[in-house]
Amino acid sequence: MSKKAVILVSGGLDSTTVLSMALAQGYDCYTLSFDYGQRHRSELDSAQRVSDSAAVVEHKVVKLDLGTIGGSALTDAAIDVPEHETTGIPVTYVPARNTVFLSIALGWAEVLGANDIFLGVNAVDYSGYPDCRPDYISAFESMANLATKAGVEGQRLRIHAPLMTMTKADIVEAGLALGVDYSQTVSCYQASQEGLACGKCDSCRLRSQGFIEAGVKDPTRYQNKA
Amino acid sequence: MSKKAVILVSGGLDSTTVLSMALAQGYDCYTLSFDYGQRHRSELDSAQRVSDSAAVVEHKVVKLDLGTIGGSALTDAAIDVPEHETTGIPVTYVPARNTVFLSIALGWAEVLGANDIFLGVNAVDYSGYPDCRPDYISAFESMANLATKAGVEGQRLRIHAPLMTMTKADIVEAGLALGVDYSQTVSCYQASQEGLACGKCDSCRLRSQGFIEAGVKDPTRYQNKA
Repeated sequence: MSKKAVILVSGGLDSTTVLSMALAQGYDCYTLSFDYGQRHRSELDSAQRVSDSAAVVEHKVVKLDLGTIGGSALTDAAIDVPEHETTGIPVTYVPARNTVFLSIALGWAEVLGANDIFLGVNAVDYSGYPDCRPDYISAFESMANLATKAGVEGQRLRIHAPLMTMTKADIVEAGLALGVDYSQTVSCYQASQEGLACGKCDSCRLRSQGFIEAGVKDPTRYQNKA
Repeated sequence: MSKKAVILVSGGLDSTTVLSMALAQGYDCYTLSFDYGQRHRSELDSAQRVSDSAAVVEHKVVKLDLGTIGGSALTDAAIDVPEHETTGIPVTYVPARNTVFLSIALGWAEVLGANDIFLGVNAVDYSGYPDCRPDYISAFESMANLATKAGVEGQRLRIHAPLMTMTKADIVEAGLALGVDYSQTVSCYQASQEGLACGKCDSCRLRSQGFIEAGVKDPTRYQNKA
């Protein structure tokens, strides 16, 4: 019997690894991305490319204007993306983003009859983001099981966050073992239209460090490199 | 000290009553509506009208294409809105809609520094909708307090659903006591562009019954009436 899963994909390193894990577990994968007013719009091309090469059943892009509510460097051109390390909750945090994305994934899962949703949140690297913690994921899952027809009818919806306690190096190693081609992925918060990474933002720094710690060559295409 | 609240408004009877309740409780009200691909787009005009006459601090409309995931008569032109009573979860149910709307309200609340979100869900009339039950609201609140900066920093976010156990007649009476002008509101699932109600869908039937039971004249503007 086939089992369907909805996978949140941003075209970045983490969610691409999660997709490869879900495929390896035998799920029929439906990938979901958001055109939410983000700076790094090339992530949508990357999400499409990754979905195509992974032979997912379907890839959908939902338009959602999170810029309307503002409050983040990722959706508000007036707030700069920091190019050095910061402490506390970073300005790149998009208010309630994971909650919004998971909610829409929940809606699509309900339409598809899927009981499994995967996402690439990670408590190690993103400790500054409240919605990247195990307690949060577990609370979302409880809520989701009360929110839907499936929950009412006694099915159990599960939220899978397989990267939760992995380091970036662990993630890279797991993905490589599953055949992920990381040159296709873009993690940068301010990638160019062509998908070239800045090499300076939080996301670029974490990613680059992951390749170094895993002891593998970094396949990222950077701006300003020969 | 001022206290801010985000109020989900659809321009219908229920949410307009909730807005009047939040104002009566002294909240500075920020109203939020969604352009989500719904058939009844005149609700957006109604939400604007209601927000203007209630003198809210700000009214925002977030664009979000829920039609992309389909699955509801309200966002999919291929599914008809039923014009007779049905049992079970109705086809007008939009998968995870309240979860999605509350999530975006949560994001805006976080940007505003508001700790209170109001919405007009009701377990009496909408018993067929899983996301209109007290257990669901309470689970969302628990999740929300783990999802946000405010929650992490020890503030308590509350989800208010003051209509939860009220009948439609109770709601009409409460709203009239607070001065709500229901002729400005549109509840119909398939209202005309001018905001004229069909008088036949579930939402019209419940609303009309509310006025009858409250013993007040129905101010709704219907189609096909002289």
